[in-house]
Amino acid sequence: MLYVLDLLGVAVFAASGALVAVRNRLDVVGVVVLATATGLGGGLIRDVLIGDVPPASLRDWWYLAVPIVVGLLVFRWHPAVGRREPLITTADAAGLGLFCVSGALKATEAGLGPLPAALIGVITGVGGGVVRDLLADRVPLVLSDGELYAIPALAGASVAVLGSELGLANAVVAGPAAALTIGWRLLAVRRGWHAPGPHR
Amino acid sequence: MLYVLDLLGVAVFAASGALVAVRNRLDVVGVVVLATATGLGGGLIRDVLIGDVPPASLRDWWYLAVPIVVGLLVFRWHPAVGRREPLITTADAAGLGLFCVSGALKATEAGLGPLPAALIGVITGVGGGVVRDLLADRVPLVLSDGELYAIPALAGASVAVLGSELGLANAVVAGPAAALTIGWRLLAVRRGWHAPGPHR
Amino acid sequence: MLYVLDLLGVAVFAASGALVAVRNRLDVVGVVVLATATGLGGGLIRDVLIGDVPPASLRDWWYLAVPIVVGLLVFRWHPAVGRREPLITTADAAGLGLFCVSGALKATEAGLGPLPAALIGVITGVGGGVVRDLLADRVPLVLSDGELYAIPALAGASVAVLGSELGLANAVVAGPAAALTIGWRLLAVRRGWHAPGPHR
Repeated sequence: MLYVLDLLGVAVFAASGALVAVRNRLDVVGVVVLATATGLGGGLIRDVLIGDVPPASLRDWWYLAVPIVVGLLVFRWHPAVGRREPLITTADAAGLGLFCVSGALKATEAGLGPLPAALIGVITGVGGGVVRDLLADRVPLVLSDGELYAIPALAGASVAVLGSELGLANAVVAGPAAALTIGWRLLAVRRGWHAPGPHR
Repeated sequence: MLYVLDLLGVAVFAASGALVAVRNRLDVVGVVVLATATGLGGGLIRDVLIGDVPPASLRDWWYLAVPIVVGLLVFRWHPAVGRREPLITTADAAGLGLFCVSGALKATEAGLGPLPAALIGVITGVGGGVVRDLLADRVPLVLSDGELYAIPALAGASVAVLGSELGLANAVVAGPAAALTIGWRLLAVRRGWHAPGPHR
Repeated sequence: MLYVLDLLGVAVFAASGALVAVRNRLDVVGVVVLATATGLGGGLIRDVLIGDVPPASLRDWWYLAVPIVVGLLVFRWHPAVGRREPLITTADAAGLGLFCVSGALKATEAGLGPLPAALIGVITGVGGGVVRDLLADRVPLVLSDGELYAIPALAGASVAVLGSELGLANAVVAGPAAALTIGWRLLAVRRGWHAPGPHR
């Protein structure tokens, strides 16, 4: 179940990466690479930092097959995918919630303290998008566009870490923590909430 | 023998990185750093991802000395090097074939499955160029210019992995696999073949 | 004592990253992330390359708390911090000297040879700034602006490695090595010395 959710998160992130690649007029290699890097980037950075190598996404070929297929599909049918961007935004919030919580819990299990574990959770959630934007030669959106994205991820990761520190089982703490991230993120999108920026 | 070929591959990639640095008007530090990052980047990423740290290129000082010297030579005599760019393109194809096959076989030996091992092979071949382009603040050429570069690398890496899965010795499988990458790449350069892009 | 110096180095680098972020009009997340990436980036790359994971800066929450707090302070009071930029340049030279020497000695202790260890020292000193500039979507200053920055770092790291190879205690060799880097860097700033560039 968690495994299927995880692959769905990879697929959604991969779709966002592939759309950026298509809009930057990259060729088919660029679209597939951006899809894969966006889908797997956060988890790869997490695994390298906590020393779990080869990373989980290189030990199970489904983790590679999903973003590659998504990249090829978007390359071929990107107008149809682009029209569904509101749907992608919603699904992306779900992927964010899932990844930041699972990343934080994995870091806790690897023995990291609460603050580093929460940071690893955020990196797991937003790292793929940062890699996508670096490859597309632009300032990472998460740092610059004032969207509430990293802050809800930090909230969910922190709740997950705190619950784990309090001795709660991962299965108990993961749901509410992910729901906090997803709900806050979706509310921010609907209501136009923004992070404090230079002008505000 | 393989060791000398490997160092030659590093030298060729380093030359391409140094030329990009000179053309972007970087200073001597920038030229040497881009030479080194381009020559060693793919192998460094491979070794970090498969957990072989410190990476091979940090355990043998020749791997550092070669790109540093190449960078200094190009900084001093870049007009002469730049005029030989067709030669560099040919040598680069050889480096690509060598690196993607050796990277894929090393990943197989580290226990990765066929699809991840082929991906690691491609990363070994093209990773240095991606790092070069990130440091030069441009979209990686391999993602955007429509050249047939990553696709021949994937073909060679896949053949190497398949041969290894079939139980063939690395010494047997490496030659034909590298020849496939090199031949396809050179033919693509000569005949102007391109990867499917947004306009084609 | 070394620990406090190390945290001070992180704080100074974090301030430089936060100022770049403010000037690029990033939001609060961008300022905190650039502060943290600049403060910790060099050490993170060093630890990943020598296989010391989880990295030291993720095993002690002070290493995260310092750059996050610095980032928030700069976000709130950046005009006052910006006016003190000459002070930051001086402090940055101290951070550079400290990091390149401690990084080189740590690499030596991890068993790397002299040339790789010196390189790791340079990466520890300049890596945070490179990550900062990549995230800010510009060519890393250390590669392009002709400042004498990486070369003094290489000198200090090399002296530290040579001393260590000669059997001197780290405590003996670290001071003179760091002083070489700091002194050379500060003299270069005062007198306008530059690295050889394309025009010179």
